[in-house]
Amino acid sequence: MSYFIQMPLTTATQPSPKRTIHYVGLETISAPVKPHLADLERFMRGQVNDFERETRELVAYCLKNSGKRIRPILLFYSGWTSPNTISGDLVKAAAVIELVHLATLVHDDILDEASLRHNESTVSEKFGPGIAVLLGDALFSQALKLASEFPNVDVCRSVSKATRRVCAGEIGQSFQRGNTALEVEDYYRIINYKTAELFYVSCHLGAKLADYPEEFISAVGNFGRRLGVAYQIFDDIADFIGQEARIGKTLGTDVASGKFTLPLILLLRKLNKMEGKELVRGFKNGKPADIKGLNRLMAEKGIFDQVCQCFMREIDAAEEALAPFGDYPPVDHLKGISSYVRAQVSKFVWP
Amino acid sequence: MSYFIQMPLTTATQPSPKRTIHYVGLETISAPVKPHLADLERFMRGQVNDFERETRELVAYCLKNSGKRIRPILLFYSGWTSPNTISGDLVKAAAVIELVHLATLVHDDILDEASLRHNESTVSEKFGPGIAVLLGDALFSQALKLASEFPNVDVCRSVSKATRRVCAGEIGQSFQRGNTALEVEDYYRIINYKTAELFYVSCHLGAKLADYPEEFISAVGNFGRRLGVAYQIFDDIADFIGQEARIGKTLGTDVASGKFTLPLILLLRKLNKMEGKELVRGFKNGKPADIKGLNRLMAEKGIFDQVCQCFMREIDAAEEALAPFGDYPPVDHLKGISSYVRAQVSKFVWP
Repeated sequence: MSYFIQMPLTTATQPSPKRTIHYVGLETISAPVKPHLADLERFMRGQVNDFERETRELVAYCLKNSGKRIRPILLFYSGWTSPNTISGDLVKAAAVIELVHLATLVHDDILDEASLRHNESTVSEKFGPGIAVLLGDALFSQALKLASEFPNVDVCRSVSKATRRVCAGEIGQSFQRGNTALEVEDYYRIINYKTAELFYVSCHLGAKLADYPEEFISAVGNFGRRLGVAYQIFDDIADFIGQEARIGKTLGTDVASGKFTLPLILLLRKLNKMEGKELVRGFKNGKPADIKGLNRLMAEKGIFDQVCQCFMREIDAAEEALAPFGDYPPVDHLKGISSYVRAQVSKFVWP
Repeated sequence: MSYFIQMPLTTATQPSPKRTIHYVGLETISAPVKPHLADLERFMRGQVNDFERETRELVAYCLKNSGKRIRPILLFYSGWTSPNTISGDLVKAAAVIELVHLATLVHDDILDEASLRHNESTVSEKFGPGIAVLLGDALFSQALKLASEFPNVDVCRSVSKATRRVCAGEIGQSFQRGNTALEVEDYYRIINYKTAELFYVSCHLGAKLADYPEEFISAVGNFGRRLGVAYQIFDDIADFIGQEARIGKTLGTDVASGKFTLPLILLLRKLNKMEGKELVRGFKNGKPADIKGLNRLMAEKGIFDQVCQCFMREIDAAEEALAPFGDYPPVDHLKGISSYVRAQVSKFVWP
């Protein structure tokens, strides 16, 4: 299977993405698991009635707009055995992960004071932050309740541990807001927890539930983790050079909320003392240089290229983890997803 | 075993508590499980290092001031077999319940904008509501991770379901804020979820982990549930007539935050149309009659007595649930706790 994706070969001096990209959307890549995703949708909507009546309307509101379902897709492919098999266990496990993800979104939107998600008011905006706190808790409880319906404690254990780590990543990030002394390794630690952990557990669980051998489960888990790191690096660079219409969310929010992400960490290293002081001062005052100015500076210093290399390094590592297992049914499908993520960067119009 | 507790026999016309009360404190009642509680304390403090380093300081801050540990005490007694046995499983299960309880407190304090708990700044006050959201999530995750260390999924299942119900109770309560048309049964439904559920699960789990027969596990669960309802009724009446120094928390907060609890529901039923309209108007404007005035009105209408009867009905039902099992080791101990809760009302100085 090949997805015909070519990456733009950007350099610091020639950041031109003008070559032809054979872009393949997530719909194409996820076509083989369309029936699984439909089952997941039904299953998730069926969950509404399992909640107490106080919570149902809120849960239904949350489930109305599903996201990209990237974690379920990863889980379905990691547990892929043959085209005609849809395992109820995989659907349930995907629902567990997606409910945890949903809970974190509901809570994140409180922290970020976000008013819109998927073009609808966030729960916090519509029902107030108090209700959003409680609803997130209820969604998380239901995720764990579903996890406890598996015959053994494995799903509960991996999901609860992963969730604790997601929280640790978010807590780390919150404490580091406005900290311009953040090191590259701190950044990686944070995104490894806050984003890559759920990618990891999606892949790991999928392969485990499909009874693949331990080495393969472990490799698929690593694939998920590195892919998750790449995904977050993409998200962080998109906050600078993405186009809102294409990315589908408000950009520039990281800078505005004091998140010192990889592009800024790398930029600060390339600046002379005076320039650096100015960047830090602007950032600490909550008034960093305007995004356009920052983007010009980053283009000048080759930062986008450097971030792009970091991104590619993760995607490469993700794919390398699968290299020894080329004949396993999930592998081509998973590589399809990593190609999809890799191609995201090609959407950017480089400054 | 007898705890020598006599209840004040209050009546609507003569609400005098001036007789001698042989009051027995929780310390006396929990003396037999002191070693269990010490183990729990060690175990809980040991948990700090299991969290990621981003979270540890926050967890340690939360654990610094333990509450009354009433849920662990219930769990220990429900699983009581002999004086010299401390089961590691019971200690771990108690930690699970207490971490869930702690998580709900951390989140409740955000909703209530509370600044103090156990005479320390709340997490929300000290670190901000965003961190409090995330820490509550991390505590809850850790609770479920501990629950998943049991050999089967029972603990995960009952704890996650209970937590979902606690959230439903809190959500119901939030949606009903300011609603003066709340019915008695709505009130009971809310407190059954938000408070009694964790009491129930503490007792149920304790007896289950001690391998008691099903009928007894079920009876002990019922005991916990009715005791939990009583406990909340007490808390709600204390908000009117308690004495801050004795109860140890700010009073009058329910009325201030628009919670229409049992005393007010019953009062409204006894008022004539005009008086009722006035109460409702005051309440809806966020300016209900001052607590002293309300208390006078309630004393006049015999409301405290009526609430006291509701409270006693629950305690009686709790004890009745245990009646057929008088020779089971937990029973006398559990009755000690219900006597303790029963005696709480005697602390009031009736208006």
